[in-house]
Amino acid sequence: MALKAQVLYDFTAEAGNNELTVKEGETLTITNQNIGGGWIEARNSRGDVGLVPEDYIELNKAIPSFPASGTTAATPSVGNVGNLDLSVFDAFAPASAPTQNQASNGNDPWSVWNTDPSGGSNSNWASNPEGTQTGNTDPWSSVPHGHPQAYQGPGAEDDEWDDEWDDMKSSGGYTESETGDGGAMQRGGAHATSMKISLNKFPGFSKSGPELYLLCKQLAKSKEKLPIYMGEVGPVWSYPETQLDCVVADPKKGSKMYGLKSYIEYQITPNTTNRPVNHRYKHFDWLYERLLDKFGSAIPIPSLPDKQVTGRFEEEFIKMRMERLQGWMTRMCRHPVVSNSEVFQLFLTYKDEKDWKTGKRKAEKDETVGVMIFSTIEPESSDLDPTEVEQKCEQFSRFTKAMDDGVKEILTVGHEHWKRCTGPLPKEYQRIGKAFQNLSSVFTTSGYQGEATLTDALTAAGKTYEEIAQLVAEQPRKDLHFLMETNNEYKGLLGCFPDTIGVHKAGIDKVKEADKLVATSKITPQDKVTMAKRVSTMSYALQAEMNHFHSNRIYDYNRVMQLYLEEQVKFYETIAAKLRQAHSQFTTM
Amino acid sequence: MALKAQVLYDFTAEAGNNELTVKEGETLTITNQNIGGGWIEARNSRGDVGLVPEDYIELNKAIPSFPASGTTAATPSVGNVGNLDLSVFDAFAPASAPTQNQASNGNDPWSVWNTDPSGGSNSNWASNPEGTQTGNTDPWSSVPHGHPQAYQGPGAEDDEWDDEWDDMKSSGGYTESETGDGGAMQRGGAHATSMKISLNKFPGFSKSGPELYLLCKQLAKSKEKLPIYMGEVGPVWSYPETQLDCVVADPKKGSKMYGLKSYIEYQITPNTTNRPVNHRYKHFDWLYERLLDKFGSAIPIPSLPDKQVTGRFEEEFIKMRMERLQGWMTRMCRHPVVSNSEVFQLFLTYKDEKDWKTGKRKAEKDETVGVMIFSTIEPESSDLDPTEVEQKCEQFSRFTKAMDDGVKEILTVGHEHWKRCTGPLPKEYQRIGKAFQNLSSVFTTSGYQGEATLTDALTAAGKTYEEIAQLVAEQPRKDLHFLMETNNEYKGLLGCFPDTIGVHKAGIDKVKEADKLVATSKITPQDKVTMAKRVSTMSYALQAEMNHFHSNRIYDYNRVMQLYLEEQVKFYETIAAKLRQAHSQFTTM
Repeated sequence: MALKAQVLYDFTAEAGNNELTVKEGETLTITNQNIGGGWIEARNSRGDVGLVPEDYIELNKAIPSFPASGTTAATPSVGNVGNLDLSVFDAFAPASAPTQNQASNGNDPWSVWNTDPSGGSNSNWASNPEGTQTGNTDPWSSVPHGHPQAYQGPGAEDDEWDDEWDDMKSSGGYTESETGDGGAMQRGGAHATSMKISLNKFPGFSKSGPELYLLCKQLAKSKEKLPIYMGEVGPVWSYPETQLDCVVADPKKGSKMYGLKSYIEYQITPNTTNRPVNHRYKHFDWLYERLLDKFGSAIPIPSLPDKQVTGRFEEEFIKMRMERLQGWMTRMCRHPVVSNSEVFQLFLTYKDEKDWKTGKRKAEKDETVGVMIFSTIEPESSDLDPTEVEQKCEQFSRFTKAMDDGVKEILTVGHEHWKRCTGPLPKEYQRIGKAFQNLSSVFTTSGYQGEATLTDALTAAGKTYEEIAQLVAEQPRKDLHFLMETNNEYKGLLGCFPDTIGVHKAGIDKVKEADKLVATSKITPQDKVTMAKRVSTMSYALQAEMNHFHSNRIYDYNRVMQLYLEEQVKFYETIAAKLRQAHSQFTTM
Repeated sequence: MALKAQVLYDFTAEAGNNELTVKEGETLTITNQNIGGGWIEARNSRGDVGLVPEDYIELNKAIPSFPASGTTAATPSVGNVGNLDLSVFDAFAPASAPTQNQASNGNDPWSVWNTDPSGGSNSNWASNPEGTQTGNTDPWSSVPHGHPQAYQGPGAEDDEWDDEWDDMKSSGGYTESETGDGGAMQRGGAHATSMKISLNKFPGFSKSGPELYLLCKQLAKSKEKLPIYMGEVGPVWSYPETQLDCVVADPKKGSKMYGLKSYIEYQITPNTTNRPVNHRYKHFDWLYERLLDKFGSAIPIPSLPDKQVTGRFEEEFIKMRMERLQGWMTRMCRHPVVSNSEVFQLFLTYKDEKDWKTGKRKAEKDETVGVMIFSTIEPESSDLDPTEVEQKCEQFSRFTKAMDDGVKEILTVGHEHWKRCTGPLPKEYQRIGKAFQNLSSVFTTSGYQGEATLTDALTAAGKTYEEIAQLVAEQPRKDLHFLMETNNEYKGLLGCFPDTIGVHKAGIDKVKEADKLVATSKITPQDKVTMAKRVSTMSYALQAEMNHFHSNRIYDYNRVMQLYLEEQVKFYETIAAKLRQAHSQFTTM
């Protein structure tokens, strides 16, 4: 059955680029959904076939090839529901609302949990009155303005668009088999790419309510085990002896579609094998989706940070993206659960094309995803009292919300400081420098003897202030940049907590309703006991995750503040030294 | 014969202050011109008598008691014209135009000499877009806005108004005899105060064209001799072995008119006698007028700098005025001709009331004023060729104009920098400091063990940035202030050069016209020779003055740049040390 789509926005094809001009409201027939890079191949009513931006169309909501329920491998995010009576879902509908709200209220993920009206909004960025004066040295300037692609659709919130074009035909490497991969999966009707699309169109689809886990009759027989130990700080994940790490480097430009589209391939070298593997951005994105599906209910998986990164020049953009991909990979490597997962290991250490292909297919068929990840968690301690579970949850919610505010405040003042340091401030030092030099020039025309010492000194002082202007303008890249990057990363990470905490909170609410459900015979008394036990497990997972977060946070902030202050000290000392040198040239005889 | 005056602007008397309400266009009879402090006592047509601001009225232009010509002591600025045929003046009328232009075109004293259209204007101050945001720590902010007195007349360019009120009746000290003094002089019809008024109303009156000197039949038999030697740098004044200096200190508030008006008295201690004398601002002003009358044609006498100084608080105002009076006195002390003059010595070293009174009267009757000061100048070298005289003059004109531009540029950028350093910049550092501290506060709520080291360090870093904010805000008072003061002083000094150079230029023009004057029998061939010789003397004086200026300039700029850079070095080093301290508190274990 042919998949149809509605055109949401007008799109004019670029000549010679194999694109298809479409009009808003037009109906298209999808001919190939596996183009990648934000493109879909479609045919219009006149029979013309060409590429259309994925975000410009809306696939028909009732995806015909999507299986109804119950069969394996069809809906990975729903997981192994087993013989659960799905009518129970109705009873949970009100309780699971927060999770849905979170997902749909994308602009303010904190709105469900918090009453603080000032929180969570990015309005500080937009209200900055100097916003338009930003110089071209400010990588943050594009943040509030959304994606800069010229022909981005007005409502395309979850933008798949990217500077990195994907290939239609593979140009070598493992991309060819990958395309085959997609074709194979399309036959199954639930492959990665279409899944991503359905995620985009039906927000929250994969974030099923925790009832799936809380009430499933028997837990999946997964070989995966995620033990939680009691550490000094409380529940902790199992940490490996040597921490996984990797280096993202050596971005290389490739092209495909007969040179029409180009892409960047990065080299990733893990410290375990020390053997580099190559990945394009779309593979990072694939990994992100897998991790989100698999761990998202228990572990905040930060988005790939690059969607909004732009650079005025391609090199700048590539460098920035690589730096942020490195940051993302480092964070993932540091996570004991994520780094130890099969899909993450596959990404870092696949041996060859076949290995990658097999692993990829396997990962996409993984059933222990969504809330079912909790079924693999094995706390060593005894079950927690539901009241304690709730208190912990509230505490984490408050903390992450407050930290989100704090981080955003730093980003706001940092952004303003960046603009001042790269804009008006160096201009002013330059003008001071010029004024000294101009006065010096005047003095040289005095015709008075013994003028040279002063004019030389005054010129040197003027040049010093011009140098200071440059130091001031360049400094943010040396220190503020890292402070901003770290806080930006934390902003992204903290933005995942409402979802993670939301799943937890929904679980707590379910347990609270257990008595009512028992009374109405929706669940058995044994189900209620099981639910309480499982919510305790969820709480251990959340606590382990929070402790992981805190430990990383303390390290990260110590590190970035050290770096920031170290560079600031150097900066001020350099200026002082330059001025001391300038001072020494003046003399009052 | 009673002196009449027209009221220029409406003025409403302040109750109980002995003032007289007057209307624009009203005719008043002056009953006492010697009130001082910018006040004049007058009677209206209804017979009411009271004080009226001097600048709100215009004295009748034909001052009836003013002697026609030729008599001694009557017109000090005209000097001893002797038996000069005054009809010669007519012949000079066109040539003396520049001098008149200069005086009347007060807003742009450079307009006569220069073609650069950007020069000489203060528009930079006014066009500053941030001008309205100035904080209260900015002593420059009032500069472009003119005198802040609330009821200043709209056209009162030469404002005598002052925060320091003068007494009607002396409250002790030498002020009583001073009033008597004025009364005595009024009888003579040409005393200092009325002279000042006439100067205000007839700009350029005392700056008679150089023909008075160039053509007078015999030079005044003044005991004063101002030799000019040939130094290494060219013609130089005769410098004393020890340089005169004085300290202006210890401002004391007094009051008079039954407490209605108050004044500040300063203590001035010269290094020669080491014996303090007291003077009020009006005495400085009297001295300034004497020096301007006497030396203004040859030596730029900078205005008392205080007219436009304001402070938000009286203390700030008094401190600033004292600092600038000190600067003015120091400059006068450093000038070999000024400091050695009888009137200046009187000001600094009068022994008692009687001494002051006698000296004052004598100074006011001094006939060697205006261009006649050149008659006392005795160059040791041979006469200069008129071409060389003209070249020198042009050079000085160009230089002083160019330096005026350079100085104004520094004042403009300095002013902007001042505003940034006292306004937005410290606010930003404060916000950075607050953001760090806020994040630290959030971190303390984590409930995670081992948080304290980071939160303490982060709080300390935040406080450090708040301290930096304060350092930044206070710094301009420590360095930029002096750079601005020096340049402001030079701006004032340079503003006098057009007049001084103007007299010289007019002299040169006269000499150029000499042949024509001889041909039309306006002057004799001998007169022409005399004129050339006297212009040469004028040139020696101008060169000596320029060399004096250059020498002082080199010293002043070296000194102020040393001070500025020294404080800047300290500033940056202090910040670096504070940040190093903050840095040391972070740890990555």
